Amino acid sequence: MLLGALEAGGTKMVCALGNEKGEVFERESFPTREPEPTVSDIISYFAGRGIEALGVSSFGPLDLNEDSSTYGSITTTPKPGWQNVPLRTRLMDALGVPVGIDTDVNGAALGEALLGAGKGLKSLVYYTIGTGVGGGAYDHGRLLHGLVHPEMGHMLLRPHADDPAPHGFCPYHDGCLEGMACGKAIEQRWGVPARELPPEHIAWQIEAEYLAQMCVNTIVMLSPQRIVLGGGVMHQEHLFPMVRKRTLELLGGYVAHPAILEHIDSYIVPPALGNNSGAVGSLLLAVRALG
Amino acid sequence: MLLGALEAGGTKMVCALGNEKGEVFERESFPTREPEPTVSDIISYFAGRGIEALGVSSFGPLDLNEDSSTYGSITTTPKPGWQNVPLRTRLMDALGVPVGIDTDVNGAALGEALLGAGKGLKSLVYYTIGTGVGGGAYDHGRLLHGLVHPEMGHMLLRPHADDPAPHGFCPYHDGCLEGMACGKAIEQRWGVPARELPPEHIAWQIEAEYLAQMCVNTIVMLSPQRIVLGGGVMHQEHLFPMVRKRTLELLGGYVAHPAILEHIDSYIVPPALGNNSGAVGSLLLAVRALG
Repeated sequence: MLLGALEAGGTKMVCALGNEKGEVFERESFPTREPEPTVSDIISYFAGRGIEALGVSSFGPLDLNEDSSTYGSITTTPKPGWQNVPLRTRLMDALGVPVGIDTDVNGAALGEALLGAGKGLKSLVYYTIGTGVGGGAYDHGRLLHGLVHPEMGHMLLRPHADDPAPHGFCPYHDGCLEGMACGKAIEQRWGVPARELPPEHIAWQIEAEYLAQMCVNTIVMLSPQRIVLGGGVMHQEHLFPMVRKRTLELLGGYVAHPAILEHIDSYIVPPALGNNSGAVGSLLLAVRALG
Repeated sequence: MLLGALEAGGTKMVCALGNEKGEVFERESFPTREPEPTVSDIISYFAGRGIEALGVSSFGPLDLNEDSSTYGSITTTPKPGWQNVPLRTRLMDALGVPVGIDTDVNGAALGEALLGAGKGLKSLVYYTIGTGVGGGAYDHGRLLHGLVHPEMGHMLLRPHADDPAPHGFCPYHDGCLEGMACGKAIEQRWGVPARELPPEHIAWQIEAEYLAQMCVNTIVMLSPQRIVLGGGVMHQEHLFPMVRKRTLELLGGYVAHPAILEHIDSYIVPPALGNNSGAVGSLLLAVRALG
């Protein structure tokens, strides 16, 4: 089965060909510019390649209500020109194949759930901690969205006592996860890029505190069978043991399950698909679009 | 169809007879004592009444993994004698009918979702704010549980600047929802029962802040189509407009959907079933147990 995958990001569009097993045969990326030339590039890439369906993991916010007349559109993004772009409809009309669409993080969650770190499990939450922070949730076959889709990067956190910027840097929220813990926030707080901070810098304790609070809130609100932490900030691998330890401390034994109390190393994990979670997830969204 | 409903609480057991429409014909309650005499009372109530199935909404934590050998048991509760009580199996064996079981708050969420405030919607989150705080979630036909079940009362919150007890009163967690905002926490913080605090007391601003943070975290993590706030503390009706207003302020327009931005009065609501959410939900758990 030949399928198309599109990871639609705010800075680049990654197009790929692959199959239902999540195998990626080739990929190409284009810078994200105005909608018209960008969408044209995407269509040119996929046209005439013989794909049976296309899966799109996109930046948002998106309209994911299947009963809506604007299903599959980008909605209120601050990205100039991209408000109300009917991404799914444009691609479906131009390519003449079914198009599945979900958020970038839900796409990655689907990839990890079915073919990555969550293989064999029924539920998984995927976070990317990079320039921003986002989360997607897979539960018993469904990617979570209701009124709109989750915006997990904006949950509110409790400030660390030694944080010199306890309100964080989100323009919308006082002390939300993204504003406290994304790569940009680390850089704004300490004046240097995250990767230049040595592992013993207090910055990492503070970062681990916020990511541990995120894990605690995820456990008590969604109770997934596994939590996957991806994104550029998590390339700092020393963060994983710090986040796991602090998550256990914050939970205080309250959620008593061996997967957490005894096997935290396999409960909070990096993506098994590495940087391919989104591409694989997009291929699986294409499979789902075929029904 | 004659069905049984059991609301199994830490202080009382409420048994009822009703039907699949959520109509309750009669009910009786017994104090919760040691497991043996208490379970005997429950069995005596239902035995020989001709019920086709029983639905149980129970205090927890519960084992809700259908593949587990202890499915339907109460697990690590601090309640003396009740650890590892196989509640579902005992009732099923004694009564010889299918028994459906879920948490008390998931039961109430199901009642409100199908026959109460969520009628016609696909997703709903129900909170009870009383002696403790708990939350249940209904999404596209399913009650949410994965690794275990959610323990939404223990999400971590950001302290209000004027809170004289910014760490809250939960023995497990520094600053969790229940420890900050349950009825007992209000009483411990101010030295008088919540119902004796006048509406203009700052206690209510602080309470509204925490419940609004809870609503924000619910919106960004679960994105339900409606949030129902029940429990004794919410009998203070002046809290509803305060929570709605503060939720909008905290969101800062970030989740742009008319259901929130324009219709918050019908987005954050009291239970449509009043004090019957749990009983109705239990009847619906009985229906589901029939398959």
